[in-house]
Amino acid sequence: MRMPWTWAAPLASPLVVIVVIVMSVAAAAATMPPAAAAVGGSLLVPRVGMETIDADALVAILQQLRNHEQALDASFLGLCGILVFLMQTGFAMLTAGSVRSKNVQSLLFKNLIDCCTGAVAFYLFGFGLAYGASGNGFLSYSQFALSNVDVATSRDFFFQWAVSAAASTIVSGAIAERAAVHAYLLYSLVITGFLYPVVAHAVWDTKGWLSAHNVSPLLGSGMIDFAGSSIVHVVGGLSGLWGALIVGPRTGRFVNGVATPFPGHNVALIVLGCLLLWTGWFGFNAGAMLRVSTPVPHELFGGTVAVLSTGESVLFSPTLAVKHTLVSTTLGATGAALSGLVLSKVMIKVFDVCFIVNCLLGGLVSITAGAATMEPYAALLVGAFGALVYTGTSRAMTYFEVDDPVDGTGVHLGCGLWGTLSVGFFSTERLQAIAGFNHTHYGLAYGGGGRLLLCQVIGIAVIGAMVTVTIAPLFLLLRAFGILRVTADQEEAGIDEICHGGAAYPEDVRPWDTIVRENS
Amino acid sequence: MRMPWTWAAPLASPLVVIVVIVMSVAAAAATMPPAAAAVGGSLLVPRVGMETIDADALVAILQQLRNHEQALDASFLGLCGILVFLMQTGFAMLTAGSVRSKNVQSLLFKNLIDCCTGAVAFYLFGFGLAYGASGNGFLSYSQFALSNVDVATSRDFFFQWAVSAAASTIVSGAIAERAAVHAYLLYSLVITGFLYPVVAHAVWDTKGWLSAHNVSPLLGSGMIDFAGSSIVHVVGGLSGLWGALIVGPRTGRFVNGVATPFPGHNVALIVLGCLLLWTGWFGFNAGAMLRVSTPVPHELFGGTVAVLSTGESVLFSPTLAVKHTLVSTTLGATGAALSGLVLSKVMIKVFDVCFIVNCLLGGLVSITAGAATMEPYAALLVGAFGALVYTGTSRAMTYFEVDDPVDGTGVHLGCGLWGTLSVGFFSTERLQAIAGFNHTHYGLAYGGGGRLLLCQVIGIAVIGAMVTVTIAPLFLLLRAFGILRVTADQEEAGIDEICHGGAAYPEDVRPWDTIVRENS
Amino acid sequence: MRMPWTWAAPLASPLVVIVVIVMSVAAAAATMPPAAAAVGGSLLVPRVGMETIDADALVAILQQLRNHEQALDASFLGLCGILVFLMQTGFAMLTAGSVRSKNVQSLLFKNLIDCCTGAVAFYLFGFGLAYGASGNGFLSYSQFALSNVDVATSRDFFFQWAVSAAASTIVSGAIAERAAVHAYLLYSLVITGFLYPVVAHAVWDTKGWLSAHNVSPLLGSGMIDFAGSSIVHVVGGLSGLWGALIVGPRTGRFVNGVATPFPGHNVALIVLGCLLLWTGWFGFNAGAMLRVSTPVPHELFGGTVAVLSTGESVLFSPTLAVKHTLVSTTLGATGAALSGLVLSKVMIKVFDVCFIVNCLLGGLVSITAGAATMEPYAALLVGAFGALVYTGTSRAMTYFEVDDPVDGTGVHLGCGLWGTLSVGFFSTERLQAIAGFNHTHYGLAYGGGGRLLLCQVIGIAVIGAMVTVTIAPLFLLLRAFGILRVTADQEEAGIDEICHGGAAYPEDVRPWDTIVRENS
Repeated sequence: MRMPWTWAAPLASPLVVIVVIVMSVAAAAATMPPAAAAVGGSLLVPRVGMETIDADALVAILQQLRNHEQALDASFLGLCGILVFLMQTGFAMLTAGSVRSKNVQSLLFKNLIDCCTGAVAFYLFGFGLAYGASGNGFLSYSQFALSNVDVATSRDFFFQWAVSAAASTIVSGAIAERAAVHAYLLYSLVITGFLYPVVAHAVWDTKGWLSAHNVSPLLGSGMIDFAGSSIVHVVGGLSGLWGALIVGPRTGRFVNGVATPFPGHNVALIVLGCLLLWTGWFGFNAGAMLRVSTPVPHELFGGTVAVLSTGESVLFSPTLAVKHTLVSTTLGATGAALSGLVLSKVMIKVFDVCFIVNCLLGGLVSITAGAATMEPYAALLVGAFGALVYTGTSRAMTYFEVDDPVDGTGVHLGCGLWGTLSVGFFSTERLQAIAGFNHTHYGLAYGGGGRLLLCQVIGIAVIGAMVTVTIAPLFLLLRAFGILRVTADQEEAGIDEICHGGAAYPEDVRPWDTIVRENS
Repeated sequence: MRMPWTWAAPLASPLVVIVVIVMSVAAAAATMPPAAAAVGGSLLVPRVGMETIDADALVAILQQLRNHEQALDASFLGLCGILVFLMQTGFAMLTAGSVRSKNVQSLLFKNLIDCCTGAVAFYLFGFGLAYGASGNGFLSYSQFALSNVDVATSRDFFFQWAVSAAASTIVSGAIAERAAVHAYLLYSLVITGFLYPVVAHAVWDTKGWLSAHNVSPLLGSGMIDFAGSSIVHVVGGLSGLWGALIVGPRTGRFVNGVATPFPGHNVALIVLGCLLLWTGWFGFNAGAMLRVSTPVPHELFGGTVAVLSTGESVLFSPTLAVKHTLVSTTLGATGAALSGLVLSKVMIKVFDVCFIVNCLLGGLVSITAGAATMEPYAALLVGAFGALVYTGTSRAMTYFEVDDPVDGTGVHLGCGLWGTLSVGFFSTERLQAIAGFNHTHYGLAYGGGGRLLLCQVIGIAVIGAMVTVTIAPLFLLLRAFGILRVTADQEEAGIDEICHGGAAYPEDVRPWDTIVRENS
Repeated sequence: MRMPWTWAAPLASPLVVIVVIVMSVAAAAATMPPAAAAVGGSLLVPRVGMETIDADALVAILQQLRNHEQALDASFLGLCGILVFLMQTGFAMLTAGSVRSKNVQSLLFKNLIDCCTGAVAFYLFGFGLAYGASGNGFLSYSQFALSNVDVATSRDFFFQWAVSAAASTIVSGAIAERAAVHAYLLYSLVITGFLYPVVAHAVWDTKGWLSAHNVSPLLGSGMIDFAGSSIVHVVGGLSGLWGALIVGPRTGRFVNGVATPFPGHNVALIVLGCLLLWTGWFGFNAGAMLRVSTPVPHELFGGTVAVLSTGESVLFSPTLAVKHTLVSTTLGATGAALSGLVLSKVMIKVFDVCFIVNCLLGGLVSITAGAATMEPYAALLVGAFGALVYTGTSRAMTYFEVDDPVDGTGVHLGCGLWGTLSVGFFSTERLQAIAGFNHTHYGLAYGGGGRLLLCQVIGIAVIGAMVTVTIAPLFLLLRAFGILRVTADQEEAGIDEICHGGAAYPEDVRPWDTIVRENS
């Protein structure tokens, strides 16, 4: 009897072997990295091999990469926050050096205490108003007193507080040598507990109605203020201007239309302050990126690639943005200082160190908004022009007899406005993409249309209005209650003598007193 | 003839094919990530695929992750160490500003040189005594002069030296304006070469008998002093107190029960010092974590998860602990400054800047022990109460006629004790687990039992005894040999004139001298 | 009819099954990590499993590791650059404190402005000359004004600028109190725009003819100047010496062979400057590694292992090199300070703070060249001897009546030369390998042959010649045109009065003026 299928058996067996071999070869072939593997350069082509990895280990590797990212960003942002806090030392020395020695303690006190009242106000209210998880376009309303804050995903409180403290401190100089201490304390609570947070929310929070990070940004563009030319410096500078206007000039500063200069008592402290501010400013601008790690554009890591109008693909890269920011911060400051050098020689005929210091600081303020999104040459120009803006504002203050002892209005308000506007002109599509900004609208100078500039103008107008309606009534009210300004006698004697128990340099007084006594 | 098994052939072949197919499908199915893969969030689910990786590459990837961890931690800790070193500038300016101008060079000299003698003593002896690989609960005894130190696994010498230098420097202020230079040099060798290392070993080394990291900790709990309220500040502060007691008050400070204030000559230097100290303190407290990276809880990475009494699983996370530490350091300092603001107004009637500076520093000392393990609101309260502790200690010093020119006893000893105790009350189970501490015993205020508090008390008592038996005999011996204090004439003329070749501000003397000469 | 092969079917089928089983076992066995897996310790042995990973994900993981490496290095180097910039504050305070009060503004101005002119010059020319992509052994000639700079692969502009600014600033002290401002501005453009970049290119760029990183280094060894004892300090110090020689001593400094000391007006500023310089120096030396991440020695990551003459395999590890650098920088400075302490007591009979400050800074300069490649004890000795070199150079300056108001020639030139030479004696094979240097030639003291020392000598000679032919003619030309020095009247009145609009401490003048007026 025939068994009709037995002939198939000898064929079937080799066939199975062939199938196994073909499958093995196919599997091996599949380990050849595809063309996409070339992205990372030749180093990144994994070798063909036979190993497998268990799912747990793979998940652990991916989680460890994420942990490293978080640790890297926490370390970077924490250290940047410490540098931002170093600016408090800078502000204290700059303003203390800029006043007469009889008011030195007063300035030191204000600088020291405003970052303390600010910390408590920002902890209780400010952080929640600015960056709380729940909120609308105008403010957030959760996570007050750091409740329910998931440290891993929320904005970094420490860095944000240090930035808010800078905004608050700016005012101390403008109303120096005649404003009462209590008024200043109240003011600093309002700015860090309410005003600054609401402004920061509008521009920096992803929910903010002015923010370029909003999913549906204003005019399709939103406002770009990378590190806070408007949020920190216009807020601080305009608050100071309102203070200076409402408290009035120091006695004897403007007499019959003649302005008498009241030189600061110690230029060494001024330069110390300026250099420490500049040092901290690098951390301020670089930290504004809020991270330094660059995620790979793969679903595992969540990185993104933007396609520019030129067709170029650009990776969102905080690493590059941070490096770039340090360069533009350098060039913005130096452009302004050199511009100030020339201005000083031409206008004042000498190299006035205090004037150049203010120009340099004005350059830093100017480049703060566009530090991440302007080319180096533009940073140099924006800084250089910032020195002119400072000079003009400062002259206008004198012309209108508004007395700002440390000239902070020119530095922070004038250059803050200029810096915010300059983004609308000089921000580039490519750098916006690298720094993670909406890049469909960019600087007018590069053909990016006027929408970004328009958003900058709207932002400035709104922030100006917010500051004015909050701060001006506060100072007017304080004046109405007679607690805004020390008395004329107290001003003459010096605030240190009245409010702080004596002179900042008690020994310096002795020779002078002795002379007067001995000669009389 | 029949061949009985041939019928099986046609069946066998398809069966093998089926086996192969089933195995392939099973293998593919196995690449579906298990439920555990969800741990890291949806981003972390690896896609099913056909690739394998060779063992070499896998080992290299795991090693690179470990290398990144080490580089991240080395970078973080190195930069924190540099910030700790910045505190030397802070101490130098604070103490120099707090004395009369005739002793400024003396203070500057001591601050400059003690971190130098300390470095050599710590290099030769201290590091080996504190953290050497071989040792028992009381001290280590290997790796002197950094011999056989495996940099990859040992404690970081640089950071530890910077911390030890802070402990040493604290004393310079307490014995200022009358202690002889040679005595101070000898003292600073003893503290960094022996006393501080032995205390640090007991509490911070994993072998230390007081350490909460000991595998078999004291009372099952061990003592928690995160960044050194006791190890740095009680050691420095109590050493200073013994010094101040044994060297005696400055001539004229206490006459017939009346204390004459000797105001510091330069408040600007004091505030400069305070702000630089605060800036560096952030690095001090954050760096005390010794790392910033968070290892994944998988055998490949060695991370750990703790299960709290509530059943909650908490990951050991230096990243979160560092972020938390920066927040509590901010709030501890500001709570104390605002508390000091009120105290100053109530008690002194004016805003005394030097008093508020000391309150603020007292707040920093207070929060140092619990910076990683206290909630933000507790940090604020511990700081605020620290200002009261400082004030009380400072008043007691005056009452008992102990003269501490910079009031460091109140700041470092008083608040150091309070800070160490406060951990026993306010340390939370959850934050202890995050920071890697034994979490079975935690703060009394949260129902954590009294064992942690008891350990804190024992720790303080032991440290106090160790300081006393080391430092008091040293100072007594120096006094017995007559080399502890300058002569009355030298004290009157100023130590700068006698020991340092002249005044710190040589030009300032001229007008005064001239006046005296011209008028006589 | 017989079918001759049917007997094979029953055998074939089990054979296939066996083949499949054997292959599966083999595959499983292959997942057992090979011996090499032990490199990273037991934690790194991946478990056997059944998972596979798709090629995209694997490439993404590798790319993310590379991104982390870049972010880590960018963060580290950026923060180190900020610390280097802090040295500008240190230099400003040190030099301002070291001069008479009538010239304080002048020094502050020079320090402030030279890092600004330097930034523009370095941006436009210097960076391209030093590190441009195209170039030869003597200079690069591309990427001027940061054009076509691939931020991911190029040297970090920010860090390099901060280092170049240090070189430029050194000179301001040497020609203080009598050189004209315009001359200084011109000089600082030349040094940062041309001289420093060309020297840095020769030694630090991989294309440089003196560089130890050159693929074909000089004498098979090349010169090692890790952080710039020669490139920064010899360049700055020798430029200053030429300036001091050509501009001549201050009026009244040397009269009939007698040197009158002109003490600095403020020792507190000097110590402030010294401590800030030291703080920043840690970032300077650590940052000179240019990275902190350690790549695994696998083709995926590009790490390297060197085999020493002892047969030991040593991994190139920037992480370890950075940690080591911080330790040797600490010990170099403290060795010098303690050496200076003894020298001061023996030679000057008192503890001269300014002298000890200069010794300490000399120690920092001395250890800068060998910070990464010398053992800790050698760092201590090199620093200690550096204090002697400073003292000798300083005495020689006085003997030859060359007037350097801040004694920077001793600190920067003397110790810069010594530090560069010391590498030829004390650099070790093992540390050179860790830091990535050619390790076939190392320190003479360890039997490494004389080639490294010879390269150091050649390097110094060449750099000395380059500085001389550039700077001496410049200063001679300025003198020939009569614009190098202020007039005798101006010098008497003080440069602040003439060039900067008045005194740095305007109030200090009043008592004195009043006295004179009242008494006359």
